[in-house]
Amino acid sequence: MKSQIRRTAIVSALLTAFVAAPIALPNGNSALLGNTAHAAQEKLGPEVSSFFLDNGLQVVVIPDRRAPVVTHMLWYRAGSADEPPGKSGIAHFLEHLMFKGTKTVANGEFSARIAAIGGQENAFTSTDYTGYFQRVTPSALEEMMTLEADRMENLVLTDELILPERDVVQEERNSRTENNPGSLLREAMAAALYQNHPYGIPIIGWQHEIDTLTKEDALAFYDKFYTPNNAILVVAGDVDAETVRSLAEKTYGKVARRAEPGVRKRPTEPTPQAARRIEMADHRVSTPSFQRLYLVPSYNTAEPGEAEALDVLSDILGGGSTSRLYKSLVIDQQIATSSGAWYQGGALDHSSYGFYGAPKPGISLEEVEAATDKEIAKLLEEGVTQEEVERTTRRLVKQAVFSQDSQASLARIYGGSLVLGSTIEDIEAWPQRIQAVTAEAVNKAARKYLQMPRSVTGYLSPKQQEG
Amino acid sequence: MKSQIRRTAIVSALLTAFVAAPIALPNGNSALLGNTAHAAQEKLGPEVSSFFLDNGLQVVVIPDRRAPVVTHMLWYRAGSADEPPGKSGIAHFLEHLMFKGTKTVANGEFSARIAAIGGQENAFTSTDYTGYFQRVTPSALEEMMTLEADRMENLVLTDELILPERDVVQEERNSRTENNPGSLLREAMAAALYQNHPYGIPIIGWQHEIDTLTKEDALAFYDKFYTPNNAILVVAGDVDAETVRSLAEKTYGKVARRAEPGVRKRPTEPTPQAARRIEMADHRVSTPSFQRLYLVPSYNTAEPGEAEALDVLSDILGGGSTSRLYKSLVIDQQIATSSGAWYQGGALDHSSYGFYGAPKPGISLEEVEAATDKEIAKLLEEGVTQEEVERTTRRLVKQAVFSQDSQASLARIYGGSLVLGSTIEDIEAWPQRIQAVTAEAVNKAARKYLQMPRSVTGYLSPKQQEG
Repeated sequence: MKSQIRRTAIVSALLTAFVAAPIALPNGNSALLGNTAHAAQEKLGPEVSSFFLDNGLQVVVIPDRRAPVVTHMLWYRAGSADEPPGKSGIAHFLEHLMFKGTKTVANGEFSARIAAIGGQENAFTSTDYTGYFQRVTPSALEEMMTLEADRMENLVLTDELILPERDVVQEERNSRTENNPGSLLREAMAAALYQNHPYGIPIIGWQHEIDTLTKEDALAFYDKFYTPNNAILVVAGDVDAETVRSLAEKTYGKVARRAEPGVRKRPTEPTPQAARRIEMADHRVSTPSFQRLYLVPSYNTAEPGEAEALDVLSDILGGGSTSRLYKSLVIDQQIATSSGAWYQGGALDHSSYGFYGAPKPGISLEEVEAATDKEIAKLLEEGVTQEEVERTTRRLVKQAVFSQDSQASLARIYGGSLVLGSTIEDIEAWPQRIQAVTAEAVNKAARKYLQMPRSVTGYLSPKQQEG
Repeated sequence: MKSQIRRTAIVSALLTAFVAAPIALPNGNSALLGNTAHAAQEKLGPEVSSFFLDNGLQVVVIPDRRAPVVTHMLWYRAGSADEPPGKSGIAHFLEHLMFKGTKTVANGEFSARIAAIGGQENAFTSTDYTGYFQRVTPSALEEMMTLEADRMENLVLTDELILPERDVVQEERNSRTENNPGSLLREAMAAALYQNHPYGIPIIGWQHEIDTLTKEDALAFYDKFYTPNNAILVVAGDVDAETVRSLAEKTYGKVARRAEPGVRKRPTEPTPQAARRIEMADHRVSTPSFQRLYLVPSYNTAEPGEAEALDVLSDILGGGSTSRLYKSLVIDQQIATSSGAWYQGGALDHSSYGFYGAPKPGISLEEVEAATDKEIAKLLEEGVTQEEVERTTRRLVKQAVFSQDSQASLARIYGGSLVLGSTIEDIEAWPQRIQAVTAEAVNKAARKYLQMPRSVTGYLSPKQQEG
């Protein structure tokens, strides 16, 4: 069974950072970044084009001529938060099943053809989307498009194919989650953070619900969401927009609109009323650790400028070895081996803002938590300085520049942002918006959201002995 | 607006105890209780009869000739846990709207008619059911049945009627929950206890979702669940089964099967992995208190005998002033003003087992929690004695006897148990099953379920001063 496990990735809403570092321009000339770039004389960034086929498929082309390679990614607006109640894991299970063959392509043939031409492939499921990815030579692009378009409407599933793959998924859950106390704690923290929204349900699914998933469940999800008008195709690499357009019309253009999924409207969170704490002690844990999550808005739900301010705030507080937390807990006080903060702004609905820290031997989790809280309290009281903000925005924009160096990450940035409702203009203007963040905006966002009733605190510790 | 608030009751799954004290027989001759009573020579209990109309309505008649009064209760198998995601509160809102009139009965006329004949009425919504109740003289029974049957299929709703009533519901939520830190904490604890099952959503609904409920939402819920084949009629009092049957056929018998709601299958809980803690400090709190919930099975989901064992366990540990917790914390150690435990076994799916305690002035919540945990640990280690079990089962059976003295509570016991899937035989055999509980069964259930990873702990405390 093990050998059948696909190299797929479950993209957690807590870990991806597409929007947080969407895109910037290679010359680092930050003053000319963003929307204004279009008006500028010099051609500064990739000439991204976007168009729709008649069946509703959005096609985005990102030229990148540095090497004879193309990245072909298809994104569906369908993730684990779109699953029907009680069917957790069906989005991810279907992602596995998409490799099981169609009316004309045999089980396993999709991957075999890519391997035969030396290509790479992957697939991933998140709370808000599912994506399929191949990296091949430009001459193989048409074949990729033909295969991907084929499995958008012609998937064939039988119980014979499905049931062993469900075991594979359970095995994936076992190795990633059931045997990993840190993952179990993260699941419990997400379930506590989201009291009403389906983001509280794990992307891979609850173990006892995966057990009950059927062929009918997979096909119902497929028929509801896998339709051209619910997908975004991103082609990046050594290819021009006109070629992609004609290939797309020839392949994807033949797929009928199979459904009208409409607006994605999930239950939202009530205003949080009380701080929650979760402790997990397990003999498999070697290093204790502390985590804190706060319920915050995403780029998609925040007031204008708020999400950008949260990105700057997380960097000042906890981004790397020059951050306030690291300097205080690791360097000055020497009570922690790690300490930091992060913001995951890429989500259709709510998002989370997190802190973490690991105590040095002899130091308790309570001490690390108290020291973290002291830094937070100090920030809320005294605020950040404009100088800190400027140093941080410069660094964030530079990071965005670096992220553009990889063709695959370019494709992921565009696909992952567009699938969450951003426009190409939003993506291109991100560096500009980050540079517009003021100390006042950071302080306001911090005081609004870093409140204990919005939080879940987690302790992971080694189990000393059986009770 | 206030004067419009209906006298309705939201029945929390955490508070009802229908199944926990279902029914016993008035002479207290416990040796002859239960199913065997039918074979006994003497007539020991009410001669409960049950039959179905052609349209699927179950009718249960409980003769009680002590006074010229009848209790008429209609129970629908539809509660807050049956609501669509994002529509929390619609079951309870519809319960309010059921008094807004039909094709032939004007808004408010239903209640006016009952008041005119000196009757009493009420309505209640729970996680698993919604019920409507009137207490009138036997001569008015036909009118009650006519009115109740009429509003099962002829409800008329307009936005003009709906929108002010939604304000009434919000006002109800404000006074019960938003202005009550204890209620807010209970909501947060339920949301943390149920990570996947809709029992984590409050019966009255989240405030921000109540705001969005529409006429269409109410009618969709009504059309799906308010159908004779999804209801149970209980008539208790000074009336015989044949009279009820002919009246039921004449009134309810005319209502067509409006829908086929089918089996109620909600998402279930994963095995809990980590203890959760919630703290709420608020200046409106005068007395601090501690609570602990454990996820346990209900009478409907437990292994045979397990739920009965949990009922006995909760009584030994925390039922009244002779319980272990009260004797230890309140009398011996004098650290608490109250301390107890409860089990709420009446639910279609999961249930909860709770502990509570309030510290004496000068004592911390931590000390009360630690003392409670010490009693729990002692019980898990040493177990309960057979003598404790027998003393408890005698008392539980006696309590069940007392509960039969009220006609309304008899009707609630039968209706509330049948609507959760019990049979009349189950209800009548409950005293027998309680008497069969052994110390071994109690200890086994305690060790299986009173485990910290299954728990949520709550602290409610006065807010000392603003941070």
